[in-house]
Amino acid sequence: MLNATHPCADFLRAAATICGEDQVVPGSSIEPRYLEPARYAPGHAAALLRPGSAQEAAQLLPLCAAHGLRVVPQGAHTGLVRAGTPDDAEREVLLSTERLREVFEFDAWDRTLRVSAGFRLSELNERLAPHGLMLPIDLSADPSVGGLVSHNTGGTRMLRYGDVRANTLALRVALADGRIVQLGQGLQKDNAQLALHQLFIGASGALGLVLEATFRLAALPRQQAVAMIAPRSLDDVFPFYQRVMARYPGLVSAFEAISREAFVAALGSPDDAQRWFGGQLPDYALLLELSSELSAGQLDLQTLLQQLLEDEFGEAVVDAVLGADADCWHLRHHISEGLRRQGKVVGFDLSLPRARFMAFREAGRRWLASQFPAARLADFGHLGDGGLHFNLVWPRELPLDEAPLREGVYALVRAHGGSISAEHGVGPQLQQAYWRHSDPAVLALSGSLQRSLDPQALLAHTQWGPAPRP
Amino acid sequence: MLNATHPCADFLRAAATICGEDQVVPGSSIEPRYLEPARYAPGHAAALLRPGSAQEAAQLLPLCAAHGLRVVPQGAHTGLVRAGTPDDAEREVLLSTERLREVFEFDAWDRTLRVSAGFRLSELNERLAPHGLMLPIDLSADPSVGGLVSHNTGGTRMLRYGDVRANTLALRVALADGRIVQLGQGLQKDNAQLALHQLFIGASGALGLVLEATFRLAALPRQQAVAMIAPRSLDDVFPFYQRVMARYPGLVSAFEAISREAFVAALGSPDDAQRWFGGQLPDYALLLELSSELSAGQLDLQTLLQQLLEDEFGEAVVDAVLGADADCWHLRHHISEGLRRQGKVVGFDLSLPRARFMAFREAGRRWLASQFPAARLADFGHLGDGGLHFNLVWPRELPLDEAPLREGVYALVRAHGGSISAEHGVGPQLQQAYWRHSDPAVLALSGSLQRSLDPQALLAHTQWGPAPRP
Repeated sequence: MLNATHPCADFLRAAATICGEDQVVPGSSIEPRYLEPARYAPGHAAALLRPGSAQEAAQLLPLCAAHGLRVVPQGAHTGLVRAGTPDDAEREVLLSTERLREVFEFDAWDRTLRVSAGFRLSELNERLAPHGLMLPIDLSADPSVGGLVSHNTGGTRMLRYGDVRANTLALRVALADGRIVQLGQGLQKDNAQLALHQLFIGASGALGLVLEATFRLAALPRQQAVAMIAPRSLDDVFPFYQRVMARYPGLVSAFEAISREAFVAALGSPDDAQRWFGGQLPDYALLLELSSELSAGQLDLQTLLQQLLEDEFGEAVVDAVLGADADCWHLRHHISEGLRRQGKVVGFDLSLPRARFMAFREAGRRWLASQFPAARLADFGHLGDGGLHFNLVWPRELPLDEAPLREGVYALVRAHGGSISAEHGVGPQLQQAYWRHSDPAVLALSGSLQRSLDPQALLAHTQWGPAPRP
Repeated sequence: MLNATHPCADFLRAAATICGEDQVVPGSSIEPRYLEPARYAPGHAAALLRPGSAQEAAQLLPLCAAHGLRVVPQGAHTGLVRAGTPDDAEREVLLSTERLREVFEFDAWDRTLRVSAGFRLSELNERLAPHGLMLPIDLSADPSVGGLVSHNTGGTRMLRYGDVRANTLALRVALADGRIVQLGQGLQKDNAQLALHQLFIGASGALGLVLEATFRLAALPRQQAVAMIAPRSLDDVFPFYQRVMARYPGLVSAFEAISREAFVAALGSPDDAQRWFGGQLPDYALLLELSSELSAGQLDLQTLLQQLLEDEFGEAVVDAVLGADADCWHLRHHISEGLRRQGKVVGFDLSLPRARFMAFREAGRRWLASQFPAARLADFGHLGDGGLHFNLVWPRELPLDEAPLREGVYALVRAHGGSISAEHGVGPQLQQAYWRHSDPAVLALSGSLQRSLDPQALLAHTQWGPAPRP
């Protein structure tokens, strides 16, 4: 029921005529899950709108503009930069895309899928698996299609399959003024237009509302072989990675690094450590996965992996656990949860040129030890593609001035030629850091493009242009 | 020597102070290779500028603007849509990027290459081969880096390696006002900015001047196995392709189709036909290539290919030639040349959803037979990614009204959900067709983005916005 005395009662009534009264919720009645992001404090919104079609969603945008309301699109609300969490109970409206489920056009012969923004990654892959196909994005979280696209998610198997961008052929987008545009036709090869859909991928929802995506699908692998590896030393990690990539470049589907602290956190109990390397956890454990669409009869990945490890044994590798694929991945996917049990987690989603990954890690470790000695580094990452979750655990009982900690790490990653956001995007959480660490020429160009798409800055929960003058 | 009486003598003098007198050539003295594109009539330009550095190139842009001159960038001049060929002896200036060769930063450990626009594809790959790496774009032509990027080239191995876009991590671009911007840092994974470099890929040079690109490199395969296959009938082609992709998805590096007419044209002499299928050429021959980075001892591609063909023999496949890899590719790469010997070639670079490839081909064949019976269809294409060079040979002695022929084919490809330019880009050659076959909403959006990057339309040799009012 809409409350006629609500400050924006007119707006709510008008919105209800577009998407139905049940789907318009005043700010005070919004369920907590819409306002509570994974890692941060709850947000606020003037209203929640849940359009049931692309058409309704598009019509809501100019309505919001007419009432001076900013629109914050939200998918499954699994993002980590607050891009889907509104922060203003008077001037921001939350637009949930979860009911955008009109289109699920799977073309088995073309191996493409056109799908509405509201579907979840897990739903896609459940429906595709019987056909031997998948959208090859592998994550601990389960975002919606809109969220995947808006944050250009990478995940643990990006090394072999690419990020969301590499697997997106077309988008259908609502612009701020309510126009719906189809960007790309879903062809594998098409250069008869500017690749405008590329602009919206990874834009944190700030340039337009993603209504549908057309994805290129990948074949499900027929076999995988996984090893958890204890390298002899940190110095051996990167040369070992190089030799693996030189030997089996087309087969490596994951090459993950897990620091001892992250490893311990992911264990159910300290006793579990005995199951790994006889309890002698290395500084940096490596999770290596090979995948192939060939059967084991044609190409035996277990044997290839074993050969590789035998050749490296006594050199870069001192121990390895094979044949425990599910356990290895279970451990990898439970690090974040384990760290949260230990204290306040300060997460950094960084990316480095692969050649400077280990140098940055060592510099970061030293900087932390000198500047924030109470911080315990428990990093882990996608070493294979340069992604590094440089996460710290901070004792809950100690106060923390987070800004200089963040700023120090960002400055260091920039000095190593890296990125302050590998796969989480920007959003309000990284807005200030984005302004500080971006080239002014790029800010100016980004700002002029954002203005040309959204002159009223209606969707600008993330501001890609220069910081406003103080 | 500059001619002081030249109509734009002031401009030429000013340009010479930027890039040196020897590198500024008045229109009347330009060598033919700069003005004669591969397939079309020669162009015209007020002057040729050959800057020797990114800095010089960027400075020339606002100078041209100040003199009301449009800049047409040109790389190796191998393009097929006249995007690199100026057409106005008074108001267009040709800017050759061939001397932009300052940067060749190869990082073997990160497997990336940052390279200036003037390098040729063949040069890159010659330098990379000793390191076991390549930029995996395979073409008959040898474009420059700037041209590769501006046309998002696909080529024959796109099926496995993706197009130029999929292999480009960053660009350095000069905007129309002379600003140089670095878009992206060359990281594998980076979502801390809008992906602005994506806009310039495939933009036919019309949004900014590409100065440098950073590419992701691929491992050279250690083995390949190639077969030229005679399918039983046209109806068997696509189901056979599906079975190949289901069986060896990660190994297929090319799946090309060659019509009988194209096959005959590519033969050195009619006698050569005996070497293929005993002279019984099929309607559509298929060139299938498998590639792997594994050694033949680990995975024997020849055996896999043989098994596949044996299983299909008597079903989809009636004959196949194995073990003649170089001959197969030689034939494939000599089709265009062979066709030109036979008459006037009318080339179409189309793309279809793979599931509709054969249906379009048949509809196109029938339409031609009824509307242009003198046209001989000699198509060939990248069936694996939906690319189709729907080329016709027209008798030189007959007049041809090309416009309705082109329009008819374009309308047909659009009706099949395809693209009028798969990999050649747009450029002046396809400008009119682009306007006719693009969604007005996409034209409006493209136009506003182009204006925001180049308000004076200085670089707009290709106009991405709507057609000017008559």
